[in-house]
Amino acid sequence: MAFEDMIMLLTQKRYVELKERLSELQIPDIAEFLDELDSKNAIIAFRLLPKEIAADVFSYLSTERQGEISMLIDEKELIDIMNDLFFDDKIDFLEEMPANVVKRILRNVSEAERRLINHFLQYPDNSAGSLMTIEFVDLKKEMTVKDALGKIRRVGRDREIVYTCYVTDARRKLEGIVSLKDLVLASPDAKVEDIMRKEVIYVDTYDHREDVADIFKKYDFLAVPVVDQEKRLVGIITIDDIVDVIEKENTEDFQRIAAIQPSEIDYLESTPLMLARKRIVWLLILMISATVSGYIIRRYQVAIEAVVALTAFIPMLMDTGGNAGSQSSVTVIRSLALGQLKFSDILKVIRKELQISVLVGFGLTVVNFIRIYFLEGYDLSIALTISLTLFLTIIFAKLIGGTLPMLAKKVGLDPAIMASPLITTIVDAVSLIVYFSLAVRILHIAV
Amino acid sequence: MAFEDMIMLLTQKRYVELKERLSELQIPDIAEFLDELDSKNAIIAFRLLPKEIAADVFSYLSTERQGEISMLIDEKELIDIMNDLFFDDKIDFLEEMPANVVKRILRNVSEAERRLINHFLQYPDNSAGSLMTIEFVDLKKEMTVKDALGKIRRVGRDREIVYTCYVTDARRKLEGIVSLKDLVLASPDAKVEDIMRKEVIYVDTYDHREDVADIFKKYDFLAVPVVDQEKRLVGIITIDDIVDVIEKENTEDFQRIAAIQPSEIDYLESTPLMLARKRIVWLLILMISATVSGYIIRRYQVAIEAVVALTAFIPMLMDTGGNAGSQSSVTVIRSLALGQLKFSDILKVIRKELQISVLVGFGLTVVNFIRIYFLEGYDLSIALTISLTLFLTIIFAKLIGGTLPMLAKKVGLDPAIMASPLITTIVDAVSLIVYFSLAVRILHIAV
Repeated sequence: MAFEDMIMLLTQKRYVELKERLSELQIPDIAEFLDELDSKNAIIAFRLLPKEIAADVFSYLSTERQGEISMLIDEKELIDIMNDLFFDDKIDFLEEMPANVVKRILRNVSEAERRLINHFLQYPDNSAGSLMTIEFVDLKKEMTVKDALGKIRRVGRDREIVYTCYVTDARRKLEGIVSLKDLVLASPDAKVEDIMRKEVIYVDTYDHREDVADIFKKYDFLAVPVVDQEKRLVGIITIDDIVDVIEKENTEDFQRIAAIQPSEIDYLESTPLMLARKRIVWLLILMISATVSGYIIRRYQVAIEAVVALTAFIPMLMDTGGNAGSQSSVTVIRSLALGQLKFSDILKVIRKELQISVLVGFGLTVVNFIRIYFLEGYDLSIALTISLTLFLTIIFAKLIGGTLPMLAKKVGLDPAIMASPLITTIVDAVSLIVYFSLAVRILHIAV
Repeated sequence: MAFEDMIMLLTQKRYVELKERLSELQIPDIAEFLDELDSKNAIIAFRLLPKEIAADVFSYLSTERQGEISMLIDEKELIDIMNDLFFDDKIDFLEEMPANVVKRILRNVSEAERRLINHFLQYPDNSAGSLMTIEFVDLKKEMTVKDALGKIRRVGRDREIVYTCYVTDARRKLEGIVSLKDLVLASPDAKVEDIMRKEVIYVDTYDHREDVADIFKKYDFLAVPVVDQEKRLVGIITIDDIVDVIEKENTEDFQRIAAIQPSEIDYLESTPLMLARKRIVWLLILMISATVSGYIIRRYQVAIEAVVALTAFIPMLMDTGGNAGSQSSVTVIRSLALGQLKFSDILKVIRKELQISVLVGFGLTVVNFIRIYFLEGYDLSIALTISLTLFLTIIFAKLIGGTLPMLAKKVGLDPAIMASPLITTIVDAVSLIVYFSLAVRILHIAV
């Protein structure tokens, strides 16, 4: 969005007009505007916001800006914002803040809330517990629809999603769910018990966020209830947070595929040192693994000395093998992530990759042979050596690329690490062995 | 899920018990069960479903199973299902079906609906129009809250999402939105006009689905209205469909990064020929590009003949360069996709990648020098040549990997094609030139 005119109103201190303009914007756009200002102006603009939306805007601000604002506003304002924040946003915010900000906030909440906050802060980073919020509407099954709607009217304003209400017993155990749609459509005298759905899909506080996301994807939910070890309802997770989880899990897979250790911090907000650290580990491992290829070449030094022309084809063979393997590995990694493939499909994968690699290998080999033999005029024996190596390399690359991610998953590793970089290193070594063994035989080189 | 016991009930014809078991399942689980059966049993089980949920289950079935069922059931049953399907599911289904099924269905709908269906089928595959449904609740601003809730009660059962209602004028132009939550919380005598929100974010029928998904991610919507060229409300898009869009867009990026032409068909459902066709194009392009590296090696054949040991390090240099470059390119591609980077950030990217590559390059070069000079006992001049090449290659790889995706985006290409495979090919050629030029100078080879 372009905020030039609003920045102008701010610098010219035309606050009434600015307030008017702000009121026409959506919450996330106001946050974007505040994020673009310097901290002094951001505070001024933030104070112009109506009290009802201040906390909402706050929850969309960048972590950096949230920290600045919470240090610059006075305690009274801070308490108001904290009280108005939804609980999951409050936890997210506290997790990111430095100790001084956290202290300032915890000093200002009740003993009971402090205990609850500390409890929530203990859930592992990737767990359902760390995603949930406590602002749900709970009903009792004896209530009539009229009572239920009355309760929603009383408490609904502070609840994140009132479109699904949760029916619990005296011990807070989850007994059913009922949608606001069903309540509105039902007769006012009907009992909640009669219109609630008893078969409820729920998650556990310690379930992994990826599994929670899979449930949303499968069932098209807007929210899912979270229960503790004793099956008591402790919170709900809403679809907007799941959309973020899906993108984060995808980012992790992209990073692993590119041999980067996963990080959730934005690229521009990370320091070069942080990024270098995430990248150097795999580069080192792969660099050292690549020396195997070096040893193979050295073993066949005599062959290279006899026919130096052989070296000219090493890059083409290595690259094509690596690319062919990474196509298969990324396809399988993605299919596993989307739940379209299971380990039991491994024979189907082997069969399919074999068929594909014969088709693709044949096409590439023909083009390659024509180029080397007819266009560049190499000896038939050299053209044959290279073509045959190419064909076998592609078959091997696709088989290893298709199966390694499945085996990784089977033994509990993330399939995404079995992607291009690792596959390429393995395929390189194998293709060089094939290349030189064939060369020695076909070209009758004495080694 | 494990369906063994239900399959047993089916084969033993214990239909009453099976019906009971089915009624306890969620809709997507029933569809999963039907997808696992053979077509004869699937039809039997499908007919056991209560009429209210048959269409719902149908919309979750695999395309293959949908086709079978629509050919095997009688016309009356087919009409009932079609009438109960939400419009977007109906369009999705018709898009996938062979001509004979489509004909059978269109023969059974009214002239008006046939026209509407044909209109919807014309929206481009990736457009907002192809995602929207027509089952929304529209209100008028003169209505009272009580009237509005009355209308929702009358029509809500057939509407996909009643949690957001749309206020339109006499010409169907969108004037505002009001949430069911606001209606329930408001006084029954209030006017819709007074509680509706006038600043509405909407999309156009021809907007790309990726842009629509970005809007959902930014604003945390459950649904967004879709308007035509004349700003008339024609449909809505709901969050559950957007979750699918997000995963499809990610799959496309994964495929492009792995040098595969995008396809939306599941791996196991694609034929080897289809998959081979999607993969061979880029393999061919990259294989032919890789011959550039071959020419470079041939140009320096004299250098290789003089110091054959040089060849042993080619795989390590090529692989490390490729990996370093693909780390940067995938990071930037992902940040662009998530909207965290804009083209105007290109100088920041160059600066950051330069800093990272100096850090990473220094670390790798030191390890590499120790290995070659101290552990393997090569000449200092060879160790220096290789170490210097490695350092320069990493810097070049990270710069090109970081900037090419941004330039691609700038000229309207998908940044994801500037990923590992293409970057590797470019980096290979450059690293070989650097390697041999340095070798010739440092080792005093006459070429």
